[in-house]
Formats: sequence, structure tokens, C-alpha cells
Amino acid sequence: MLPFSTDQSGNASSTHDIGIAAGVAMKAARRQLQALIGANFDHEIIFTSGGTKSDNTAILSGLEVMPERTEIVTSAVEHPAVLTLCTHLEKTRGVKVHRIPVDHHGRFDLRAYGKALTHRVAIVSIMWADNETGTIFPVAELAEMAKKVGALFHTDAVQAVGKLPMDLKLTAIDMLSLSGHKLHGPKGIGALYVKRGVPFSSLIMGGHQERDRRAGTENTPGIVGLGKAAELALECMDEGNTRVKPLRDRLEKGILERIPKTFVTGDPLARLPNTANVAFDSIDGQAIQFLLNRYGIACSSGSACTSGTLERSHVLEAMSIPRARGAVRFSFSRYSSEEDVDRVLEVLPGIVEKLRDSSPLSSGQAKC
Amino acid sequence: MLPFSTDQSGNASSTHDIGIAAGVAMKAARRQLQALIGANFDHEIIFTSGGTKSDNTAILSGLEVMPERTEIVTSAVEHPAVLTLCTHLEKTRGVKVHRIPVDHHGRFDLRAYGKALTHRVAIVSIMWADNETGTIFPVAELAEMAKKVGALFHTDAVQAVGKLPMDLKLTAIDMLSLSGHKLHGPKGIGALYVKRGVPFSSLIMGGHQERDRRAGTENTPGIVGLGKAAELALECMDEGNTRVKPLRDRLEKGILERIPKTFVTGDPLARLPNTANVAFDSIDGQAIQFLLNRYGIACSSGSACTSGTLERSHVLEAMSIPRARGAVRFSFSRYSSEEDVDRVLEVLPGIVEKLRDSSPLSSGQAKC
Ligand SMILES: Cc1ncc(COP(=O)(O)O)c(C=O)c1O
Ligand SMILES: Cc1ncc(COP(=O)(O)O)c(C=O)c1O
Repeated sequence: MLPFSTDQSGNASSTHDIGIAAGVAMKAARRQLQALIGANFDHEIIFTSGGTKSDNTAILSGLEVMPERTEIVTSAVEHPAVLTLCTHLEKTRGVKVHRIPVDHHGRFDLRAYGKALTHRVAIVSIMWADNETGTIFPVAELAEMAKKVGALFHTDAVQAVGKLPMDLKLTAIDMLSLSGHKLHGPKGIGALYVKRGVPFSSLIMGGHQERDRRAGTENTPGIVGLGKAAELALECMDEGNTRVKPLRDRLEKGILERIPKTFVTGDPLARLPNTANVAFDSIDGQAIQFLLNRYGIACSSGSACTSGTLERSHVLEAMSIPRARGAVRFSFSRYSSEEDVDRVLEVLPGIVEKLRDSSPLSSGQAKC
Repeated sequence: MLPFSTDQSGNASSTHDIGIAAGVAMKAARRQLQALIGANFDHEIIFTSGGTKSDNTAILSGLEVMPERTEIVTSAVEHPAVLTLCTHLEKTRGVKVHRIPVDHHGRFDLRAYGKALTHRVAIVSIMWADNETGTIFPVAELAEMAKKVGALFHTDAVQAVGKLPMDLKLTAIDMLSLSGHKLHGPKGIGALYVKRGVPFSSLIMGGHQERDRRAGTENTPGIVGLGKAAELALECMDEGNTRVKPLRDRLEKGILERIPKTFVTGDPLARLPNTANVAFDSIDGQAIQFLLNRYGIACSSGSACTSGTLERSHVLEAMSIPRARGAVRFSFSRYSSEEDVDRVLEVLPGIVEKLRDSSPLSSGQAKC
């Protein structure tokens, strides 16, 4: 990324030499992403400023190109990038939003989905994998079903890209969102895949960048970084199962063995290899997160973008996990080590015990 | 920017330590921008992915928060980031758009502006300085006029920020767009100033970033770079008049002396100190640009984002500059030198002569 922030800082859209070099680098990045997700053509990749922007663009485009249809189908556990927009559209534009529920393990309700799919649906937006529990949804199958009623199918694959092998050209998925910082790439850069031939309406209007599909001078270093991250993710894809998953399983097993009244959330059979979401009876997840942070251990409760707000996770809510059961998420990567796991196993039991001792939730005062 | 791309790559919205460090750096950047534009509060600055995004957000927000008003006032010479969106809104939402004309020198038509301003206008969007000619518009005065009919006033100040001293708190300007790469900052990052108390509706929905006004994980290195660029621009503001303007004037004078049938476009009295837009009878601007590029000299014809498209510049069109008169723009900065100017003066006369010799435009065949 460095040369594109310094001496090669030309504008990819201008026609002088330093601009052309930036254009060439962007083309290479597009190819690296194409390879990672198995797109048919590199121009199916539109660079955006991140996963949120990709999600918003896809959904708004879907409504715009299907003006005779006024319904959206999504799930109850989507990222706020999808759900907040849907709620806004419901309130301001009278769009009808179907939020498909999930069961106690976070598994998608196929029956409810089938019912919601009618010729009134403009676009379906279902995440490939859930960012809180790691649960994987059968998006290829869901896309086939959406096609039958002529609806567009978008998937928020921000958590799945780089972690699961993908071959989009073999699927009926029309649009897919991804984000740089979820695959060891830069923050504030992402992409939207739009299958060739799928009608599309740009959210941001201006110059002719990205074949008129996203205006504005491009973040060249970010794009170059995202491309490289995609290349590395593809190279290291196997490590997800050979190295990352065993580490994750070791942590989960270790926690369950050491700490009573503790549960692993998410689909036991279809989960991302890198996510461990663990719930503890009678404690608040943010309290655990806070104390772990003191030991230099970074974990999450809820999405990062709602953290600090004391909002209850809508994902745990949708899974009907009792309020008095707090959850934290540990995310692994190819940079995680056995020592990292051991360190958590060393300090976490003490933290949980301390919190339970002093928690009003333990004494039955707050069960709701 | 480097630490925020490497070891300090925390997410500014998460609550663990590495996230908090990123939040602190973003706050500093906000203050640096606040100082540069003279905002009252640092939270009046919303980070975006660039000038285009800021422009689109401002205009769409204006329409959204004033649902009872359905007109936009803008100028005929705005950047495509404003004009393309306006045309789209005209076509798809029945919004009425007033495009205030300019005269032969690119000067704003105040009379037409006064006429267009009614209580039907939701938002006025007029650029602070034109990106092709450098002409400066009297935005503080235009904002006062807009206030009288209760319209919101937005200015695309992408070209003006960092080049002209600003003290927004003393003006009636409600919103202002700026872009990193126009002040030696990174590409793909920008900001929208929204005066405290001005009603605002977010374009991108999702997490709670930027006080709910722009969702999505932030491009921390870009933001840090933009902040630093703002700080340096403020420090070096004087150089615009003491060093940059004399260089620009020297180039213009040199060209006029050496090359016949040549004109400096833009307002002779109110122009950015760094912009030289020179028009040549009987040649195409892109041809000049192309040949100068061979000598390692980067200039522009039209906006970068429309270059390569052979579109005629809408700005020259609005100034009624004959089609057979091609124009190129030389942009100066505090990094420009006398040698740069001398080099252009050395090669440009030969290029123009050669092109005129072989141009169909010289023989009177194409006068329209
Ligand atoms: C006047 C003006 N407005 C808007 C823009 C668009 O800004 P960006 O390229 O950061 O999207 C430019 C860009 O170059 C510009 O000159
Ligand atoms: C599933 C999912 N979708 C969307 C996003 C938003 O992406 P970004 O933060 O790049 O805007 C996230 C982010 O963290 C996510 O986990």
C-alpha cells in the first residue's frame, strides 16, 4: 500500500502516467478479489468504503431497479448495516420487511423464508455467516429459492469471505458484500460483487468511476491492500480448518471444562472455523470484556459498532437466549496461537467467578 | 498514517485498548479539520469516503429533512458529484433543479439566483471555488440569501479548503464538503461539515459511528492522514499568496507572451491562487494534455473523473467558450517550483504549434 500513499499517488481516473499506474494496480486488486470469491469477471467487483456501504448500496439498488415490488426479505440476525436501513425504509418509504427468525442455535427458519418469498419481494438480503455466532446460512440454496419468485438475492458475506471457499459463478447469488478489515485488509475499504447482467443503480453519483457504479476518487492504497489481503486469504484458506479451528475448539472445550453454567452459542454443525461465542449464566458480557481487556485480551460483546452503547445484542435476543446470560465472542485468525488460548483459559475462570460473586444477576434479582 | 495501518489497527468503535487509541487519533483529526475551516465544534465534522460522498450526502439529507420542499438550487458549473445527482433526482423523484448560469468569466449570476430562491427550495448547493477555472463564488453572501427563504445552504468546498482562509462559524453555511486528496491528504477520505443544530439525515445506515451520521467501520489511517494534511494546510496557508500565486501568474504570463490566440479563463479578480486554466484557439485540450504527459508534465482537461471519456467540459460550455477552443488546467501547490514552470514554458509552445498545424479545427471545419 505504501507506494500508492506516497510517490505513486496518482488519481486512477486521470489519464497521465501516474494516474495510469494507479489504474493498473486497481485492476490487479479486482482480479485478486475475483479469484477469492470465484466471480466470473473482474468488473463484477465494485470497490466501496466498506461492508456497510456495500450492504446499503445493494439493498437500495434492489428497490430502485424493481420499482413495482415493495418488499424485502432479510433475517432477524443481520448486521445493523442491513437491519437499520431496513427499519428506516419501513418507516420512511412504506417498504414491507420480512425478518426471518432463527432458532435457539441461530439456525435459519427455512419454512418462514419460503412463506415470505412472493412476487412482491424486490430483494432478499441474508448474511452468509453471522458476525456474532459464526453460524453459516445456506445462501446458495436460499438464492435459488429467491430466483423462483424473480427476487434479487444479496448476501452480506463480510464474515465469510476469506474464511470459507467460494465460487460465486456457480451460484444464483446476484450481489455480495465484503469488507477489508475482516480479512486482514485495511479498514474503510470493501467491495460489492454485482453479477454481470444484474440491474444495478448507483448509490453515489458523480464521476464515471467504477463503470458509473460508484462515483468518487478511489482510495487506491486501500484497494491495493484489500487486493493483497484477498490473495493471502486465498493462499491460506486451508489454515482455517487445519490450524484455526483446532485452536478455537481448544478454547471452547477448555472454557466448558473449567467454568460451570457456560454454553457455546451458534449452530454446532455449521459455524465459521474462527468464531467462539460463549455465554455465561448470571453475568453481563460487557463486564467480562472489560476485565479481559485489562489482561490485554481483546474480545467482543455484540457488534463493535454498537459496543459502548449497552444495547442488548439483537442476535442473542433472536436466539431467545435469556438476558441474564451474558456472551462474549473470541475471534481467531491465522495469527492466533496456542499461547493466546492458554492465556485466556488462565485468566477467564477467575474473572467469571469474581463477576458471579458480585452480580445482581446471580441472586435472581434480574431475570428479564 | 503508518501505525494505524499496522500495529495500532484497532477498530475505533470497539471498547478494548487498541480500539480506544484509534478513537483518540480520530478525535485529534477532527480537531485539526475544525481549526482549518473554523468550525465551532469538532463534532460538526463527519468523516466520509471523499468529496463525492459528502456532496451526495448533503443534498439527499437536505431533501429528506425538508419533505415539504421539492426544489434544489445549484450552479451550471458544479462538479459531477453535484450535477449528476441533481439530474438523477430530477428524473426519478420529480425534484425541480435550478442551475444558475455563469458569465463568460465563470462569474455567478446573482440576479438569477435571487429569482430562483423561494420557499419551495429545500437546499442550495453552490461550490466555493470551481475545480476547472478556480473561480471563487461569494458563498457567505449566497448563504445569507438562502437563509432568508429558509433553505439549507451547502457548499462543495473541495477545491477551496486548504487554499482559502475560512471561518465557518461566522457564516450562515449549513454544510460544507471537503476531500483529502485536494489538500495533499489521502484519496478516498473526506469530510462533511454539518453545523450544529442543522437537521441531518444519514445516507449510510448501520452501526452508531460518527454519532449515527455515517455508519461503517472508519478508515482510521485515512482519517489520521486527512487531519495531518489539514494541520499542514493551515500552517502553510500564507504560501498560497506568497509563493504559489506568483508561480501561477508567471506561467500564465509566460504562455500568453509566447503563444498567440491564447486566453486565461476564469474570474480575473476572484480566483484560487493555484489554478491556471488556459484556453487555446483551434486545438483540443486532451491532445495538449496527452503530449505534455510525454514530457512528464501532468495537467488536466475537464475533471479527472470524466477524463478519458471525450466529454466536453460542462464548465467551459456554461461559460460559452467556443468548442474549437481547447483548454487545459495546471494546478500548483506548495510543492511546485520555478523549474516546473520553466519546463512547461519550454515545451508547450512547440506542442501547440504542432497541434495547430495538423488540426482540423484550425481550418475552420469545426466551429461549433
Ligand atoms: C469541486 C469538486 N467537488 C467534488 C469532487 C469529488 O471529490 P472526490 O474525488 O474526493 O470524491 C472534486 C474532485 O475531485 C472536486 O474538484
Ligand atoms: C456481518 C457484517 N456486515 C457488515 C459489517 C460492516 O462492515 P464495515 O464495518 O466495513 O462497514 C460488519 C462489520 O463489521 C459485519 O460483521
